[in-house]
Parts: sequence; C-alpha cells; structure tokens
Amino acid sequence: MPSANASRKTQEKPREVMDAAEDFAKERYGVSSMIQSQEKSGKQCFLVLRQQQFNVQALVAVGDHASKQMVKFAANINKESIVDVEGVVRKVNQKIGSCTQQDVELHIQKIYVISLAEPRLPLQLDDAIRPEIEGEEEGRATVNQDTRLDNRVIDLRTSTSQAIFRLQSGICHLFRETLVNKGFVEIQTPKIISAASEGGANVFTVSYFKNNAYLAQSPQLYKQMCICADFEKVFCIGPVFRAEDSNTHRHLTEFVGLDIEMAFNYHYHEVVEEIADTLVQIFKGLQERFQTEIQTVSKQFPCEPFKFLEPTLRLEYCEALAMLREAGIEMGDEEDLSTPNEKLLGRLVKEKYDTDFYILDKYPLAVRPFYTMPDPRNSKQSNSYDMFMRGEEILSGAQRIHDPQLLTERALHHGIDLEKIKAYIDSFRFGAPPHGGGGIGLERVTMLFLGLHNVRQTSMFPRDPKRLTP
Amino acid sequence: MPSANASRKTQEKPREVMDAAEDFAKERYGVSSMIQSQEKSGKQCFLVLRQQQFNVQALVAVGDHASKQMVKFAANINKESIVDVEGVVRKVNQKIGSCTQQDVELHIQKIYVISLAEPRLPLQLDDAIRPEIEGEEEGRATVNQDTRLDNRVIDLRTSTSQAIFRLQSGICHLFRETLVNKGFVEIQTPKIISAASEGGANVFTVSYFKNNAYLAQSPQLYKQMCICADFEKVFCIGPVFRAEDSNTHRHLTEFVGLDIEMAFNYHYHEVVEEIADTLVQIFKGLQERFQTEIQTVSKQFPCEPFKFLEPTLRLEYCEALAMLREAGIEMGDEEDLSTPNEKLLGRLVKEKYDTDFYILDKYPLAVRPFYTMPDPRNSKQSNSYDMFMRGEEILSGAQRIHDPQLLTERALHHGIDLEKIKAYIDSFRFGAPPHGGGGIGLERVTMLFLGLHNVRQTSMFPRDPKRLTP
Repeated sequence: MPSANASRKTQEKPREVMDAAEDFAKERYGVSSMIQSQEKSGKQCFLVLRQQQFNVQALVAVGDHASKQMVKFAANINKESIVDVEGVVRKVNQKIGSCTQQDVELHIQKIYVISLAEPRLPLQLDDAIRPEIEGEEEGRATVNQDTRLDNRVIDLRTSTSQAIFRLQSGICHLFRETLVNKGFVEIQTPKIISAASEGGANVFTVSYFKNNAYLAQSPQLYKQMCICADFEKVFCIGPVFRAEDSNTHRHLTEFVGLDIEMAFNYHYHEVVEEIADTLVQIFKGLQERFQTEIQTVSKQFPCEPFKFLEPTLRLEYCEALAMLREAGIEMGDEEDLSTPNEKLLGRLVKEKYDTDFYILDKYPLAVRPFYTMPDPRNSKQSNSYDMFMRGEEILSGAQRIHDPQLLTERALHHGIDLEKIKAYIDSFRFGAPPHGGGGIGLERVTMLFLGLHNVRQTSMFPRDPKRLTP
Repeated sequence: MPSANASRKTQEKPREVMDAAEDFAKERYGVSSMIQSQEKSGKQCFLVLRQQQFNVQALVAVGDHASKQMVKFAANINKESIVDVEGVVRKVNQKIGSCTQQDVELHIQKIYVISLAEPRLPLQLDDAIRPEIEGEEEGRATVNQDTRLDNRVIDLRTSTSQAIFRLQSGICHLFRETLVNKGFVEIQTPKIISAASEGGANVFTVSYFKNNAYLAQSPQLYKQMCICADFEKVFCIGPVFRAEDSNTHRHLTEFVGLDIEMAFNYHYHEVVEEIADTLVQIFKGLQERFQTEIQTVSKQFPCEPFKFLEPTLRLEYCEALAMLREAGIEMGDEEDLSTPNEKLLGRLVKEKYDTDFYILDKYPLAVRPFYTMPDPRNSKQSNSYDMFMRGEEILSGAQRIHDPQLLTERALHHGIDLEKIKAYIDSFRFGAPPHGGGGIGLERVTMLFLGLHNVRQTSMFPRDPKRLTP
C-alpha cells in the first residue's frame, strides 16, 4: 500500500504524460520525469494521501475513469512522492482506522506525480511515529534520535513533528499577542557583539573582517538599553548562542530566546507578575487553540496535561530550601539548585500545590550575575527569580541594577574588568528607570508543556556540541 | 528650562527624601541618591516631562503645595533625569507649541527624582531632532550620525527614533498577521551552519568548539527543507549575516530578514502574488495604524507619502531594459542592474505608473544563483524576481529548483563543488513540491517606506564593517 505525499485537486492543465498508447485513460495520469515501473497485477490499488498532519485513503479502480495501466501506475508510485489527484469523495461504511479522515475515501479519476521520491527512504514514517513502549513490547521498529535528526526533512513529516512545530509557532504567536496587548514594543537586537557580555566564558568567537567579535549570549544589554531609551516595555524573539560543551537533554548551543524587559514603578514584582501572566496566557492559549496538536503528540508521547494556577504560585528560595531539607536534602543557604534538586523540588511542589508551573523568587545574591539587584532587606538575597515547568527551569530573570555606582561596586566585587563593561555601565548615566526582565527558552517551553524528554525534539534543526547539520 | 525624562504619577509610597528641615513641603520632593544643587532664584520653574514620544509642560510654583526650596530643587534637576510627579492637569489659554500636549499643563504638587542624569549629555535631544535643512540655513546645531550611534541610548529617545522603531515593530506585526491569516506557519531556523550556503563568499566564520562553522547568510535552505517537510507555507523573522566589506547607505553586515517560502500548485506567480500582497498589506496597515509615527518622522525628514498600486505592478526584466535604453542607458540583455540604473528605473517607473513599489520579474538566468529555476520558455531567462521600493531593492526571490537532477546540472554549470552542497541536493530526493520564496530586508523596508536615506537610521544597533558598538 503505497503512500503518497500530498493530495491536491488538479484543474484542466496541460502536462506531459507517459506514452501509453491505446489507453483510453492516458490523459488521466502521468509523471513529468521518467520512472521505471515494475509489473504489478490487480484491478484496484489503495493509496494513503497525506497533507500536513491529515491523511485520507484513496482508491484507483479499473472502471470508467481508470484503466489497468493506470492502476498499475498508481500502485507503483514510490512512498512519499508528491501527487496531484482529482476524484470523488465517497462515504465509507466502515471507519478507516489508519487515517485521520475516517469516514470518507477518495475515488481517484486522475493522478499525476509531481515529484517522485526515491524508492528507498532513510526512515519509515510509520516507524517514526510509533510510541517507544509499543516498539519495546511488541518488538516493532522505532527510529532513534540521530537517524531522525540526520533525515530531518522526512522526520518532520510525521504527524507528531507537524503538531510539535505548529504548537511551537503558536507559543511565539501567543507570546507576542499577549505582550502587544500589554503595550510592549517588539525590538530587534544585534547578535554580533564586540565584547563578551558576561565575562567571556561560553561565548562563540566570530572572525569579523580583521578583528574578532562574539555571538550574543543573550539580548539583555540591548533590552536594557531600550528601556533606558524610553521604550518602557520591550520584547524580542531571536537566537541565543551558548558555547557550552554540555551534552544533556536540555542544552543547545543555539536556541530561541523569548525575551522581556520592562521598567517598573515601585517593585520588581510588577515585572514578575507580567512575565508569569504572559506564560499563563500562553498555556491557556495553547490548551484552547492547539488541543488537536496536544492530542496528536500525546498519542506517541503520553503525558499528563500541563497544570498551572492563577495567579501563579510564587515561592521564595528559603521556602524551597525548607521543602528540600524536609525531604532529606542537605543544602547551604547560599547554594544554587542542582538539576536533580530542581526536579525533586518540582515533584514536591506538584504534590503540595498541584501545579506544573511556579516561580522561585529571591535567589541567593551569591549565585546570580553581578548586575542583579541585591535585596534591600537582606544582603544575602537578591531581587531575582527563575520560573519552572514540570520541575525544569525555563526562565531566569531579575531586577537589574540601574544605578551606575552600585553596578560598578558589584562588578568589582565579582572581579570583573571594568574596562570591558564600560559601555554597559555608561548606559545608565543619563537617566535609567528601575527595570527587570527575563529570558524564556522556546524549545524548553515546548518540550515541557508537551511533556517531551529531549529539547532536540522541539528544535527543528538542533545545534549541540556534536551536531551542526543539517 | 530643564527637561525630565518621564512623567509618572506617584501614589502613597514611602521614600527617602532630602533633609530639608523647616520646609512644610519636604515630603513632596526628593531624590533617592544625593545630588549637588546650584543656587537659582525664582518663584516658579517650568519643566518639560516626556514619556516616550509625547511630552507635556509642567510647572512648580511657590504656593500651597510647593515651597521655595522645592522650586529650587525642581529647577536644578538635570535634563533627561527620570522623575515621579503628582499634580493637577490644567487647561492653558495659549497653546504650548513646543510640546505634543498643547492644551494642558501639569501643576506639580510632588516631585521625586528616580534616576538623576549626569549634567553633561553627549548630545542634546533638541539638536538630534532638528531637520538638517534648518540646521544648514539657520546655522543651528544638528547631530551627526556617528555621534548619534555612539550614544544610541540617548538618540533613541527622540520622537523621530521612537516613531521609526514603533513603525518597524509594526512592520513585523503586519507581516506575521498577514501571513498567519494566509495559513503560513512560523519557523525558527539555525544561524550557525556547518557549510557556507552559497559557495563561501561573504560569510562570517565562527569558532565552534574544535572546528569552524559559519553564520547563515540566509535561512533559505532551512525554509526549503520545511517546504519539503510538508509545512507548505512558512515564514521566519531573524538575523541574516553578510560579511561584505560594503560601506554604503544600504548595506549592513547583520540585518533582519523577513523570509517567506511556499509550495505552489501551477505557476510561481502564485508565490509572487502572495509576497506582493503581503507587502501591500504591510503598507496599508502602516498608513492606517501608524499615521502619527509617519507624521512625526516627516517633520524631521520630509518626504512624499509612499505610493503603491493594487494589484502590484509587475514588469518583466526586458521591459525594464527597454525603458532604460529609451532613457539613454546602454545595457546588455543579460547584464544585471547597477545601483544607479536601479534608481533611474525607479524614477522612470514612478513617472510612468505613479507607484513607489513594483516587481521586476524574469531576471536573466546568468545573474542569479544556481538554484534558480530556469524559464522553460526562454533559456536565458529565469523564474526569479526582485521587488523595489522608491527605486531600491528590498526583496530578492525565485522559484527554486526542486528536482535533484536539474539542481545538480545547474550547480555543475556554476562550477560549484557538489560535495559541499550534497545535503542541500539530497533534501529534494524524497518528494519535493515546486516552491518559491524570497527574503525582505526589514531595515530597508522601514527606511524606504519613510523616505529616509540611511539604513543605519532604521537599525537600532547597526553593524557594518566599521561599527560593532554599542
């Protein structure tokens, strides 16, 4: 049962057709380029025609509209070829369980091959869509991640991939829609920068004519400059580059950052609330508008629906520490969360508060970058926060220091060469409002919302220390 | 007359205030950090308070709500400082010509400095906003481009800059809005790539762990892979990198590309029409929703309103050649347009058709990249097109070759090493629909729509061979 790639109705349109003398249906099928067909017998053949995430069963049967030769032609079209078809949609008595369109089939009257796929595919879509558990229990083929990524053009054709990336496009749309409604302005920030923004570690170097330049590890400085330039509330979506040699399930060397920065009036919690509400609007929008996609992905990768509270749960770091200690973890007051402790905390929070999304506020000052505003009431804490989905960090943010003098002090405390961050500090010398923000990792949000387990599933063409292609 | 940066109403909120003993109004003003004030006399002082592109005159006068000390304090606030004020809005009898809010002024009852600007600004906003002609004729100061760009945080505060970048954010919004309505899917494409996509010229090299990688000169390959992966119609907005040592008014080494790619059914003009209509929707949307911004920019940079036709004028390359030859230009049939000829053609088209926007179709095959589909009716022509605004190219596009065999032939004809583009050619081996697309330069569209003369005016933080900061 060959599958063909797309169903399109043809109109009256001249085409070259195969030389099929004495065939009354010879105008009804053909290819533009020659193919070598093998013999096949039978009076009818079935095809599955797919268009994006939907498919329908189609039938070519010897009769008024199709000849024996035409049936043979259709039966020999390689899987994943692209065809134009014209036909009649007919109701079927028995549901077609293997197709998304279960109540109808298409009786083909004309069929033309638009693009013929090579006969041997590097992976089978049926295998690529099989749940792993089914593969293991029933000994049926599944496709490993490297084969998928090496042949991404085919892997992206599965209904699961189509759903993942349509939903991801929805995340960007909802992010912008929410922020534009809140009065934010979209900005574009440069990715090639003259100095490594956070001290030079984990930065990619670019040859820039006769000099060196760097790839931005975050748009933060530029977002902050826009705040100092009166834009008040800004956002941007763009690539972020991290030269970290981390080969984990959640690290990429290039990912898409959804970034927010805003001036506030009295308290940085104004910022925290805006960011958390933006994420909540994204979650709600996805559950309202992308239910088909969520269901499609869960067929291959089953998971619990994503849960969140309104307003968002906000815990202080010291509360989290208490919860972890109660669960037997030994941690110092100024120690950062390890990945296992992050996940454990996520489980504890889920048990106690029944939410997959929460804010962890007031991180120890010692574990945050130099530009983080210290907490005025507790010198060991800071006005900074992370946000978590299913126990994994998806956003890091803070109130930034907007006072040049305090910024200088904090940079010196961190042993940073003031000469290298002069331009950054100078940005705040001519009137700078108190402000804060954060950066969200698009691939992580997609992965964790859908309950997937590897960020490479939610990056179309992932980049990690070992993968630069396709 | 000092200007302060932003007007915000204060609520009841404890603040540190200056030590101003015996002053009945001492709770009504202050700074968080110490400033050294100079003596000034007078019973009242005027300030101009600005918030983004709007400003209002404000008054502090000795009376029930303000003391002499408070007036002195207000008079001494450095320009561009950020203040919180509380007061009463009063109608004025005579219009205030120097402010955007001309019918009212604010009688200040409380004023607090939130962020004090340094006393000496690197540029004056009044100078930065002055039309060049006024500067020349009246001998008044204007600000040159390098000073602006070196101090971009301040330059971006002018009403002109605010308007330019709000309009630019509108272009992105309208682009996406139009395409989402047309059924396009937003994609994210990688910027770090393993091989230079178009033969290796003008590409930036990145150190990628122990190897070299490159910065993408266009998302084209990835857009095409998405088309081959069933997405049918895709768009993306992202940075594009060109290592060209061109120091012109319209070249940047990093710019923002608005990219489109789509499968079509019968003729690549389906693609041309979708792209042209998208641009028309952007122009209409800008004229409907951003009239304030257009007017603001035209005060400093006067220009004719942007004109376009519906449907968009489409000329074939040979028609353009005939027009140029009639105007005395000597050009071969397969010669590309030089920049002066492009501009001349723009003027000729404007005279003849009264449009600032048109499509030039059917470029000579010889001047286009190897992946461009040849015209089946004329082997010297190709199914490719550029689009122009006010006589300058803003988009380049084509039907791409989707047949691996023809693609191989064309690559060999261009002397391209097949080994280097193997992955690209292989993308089309497993079913590839006919498709085409194009890339639009965001900064150029902004510049040409507003009739500006340098692309650095429409890039927040421009990158060229000589500029990498801020």
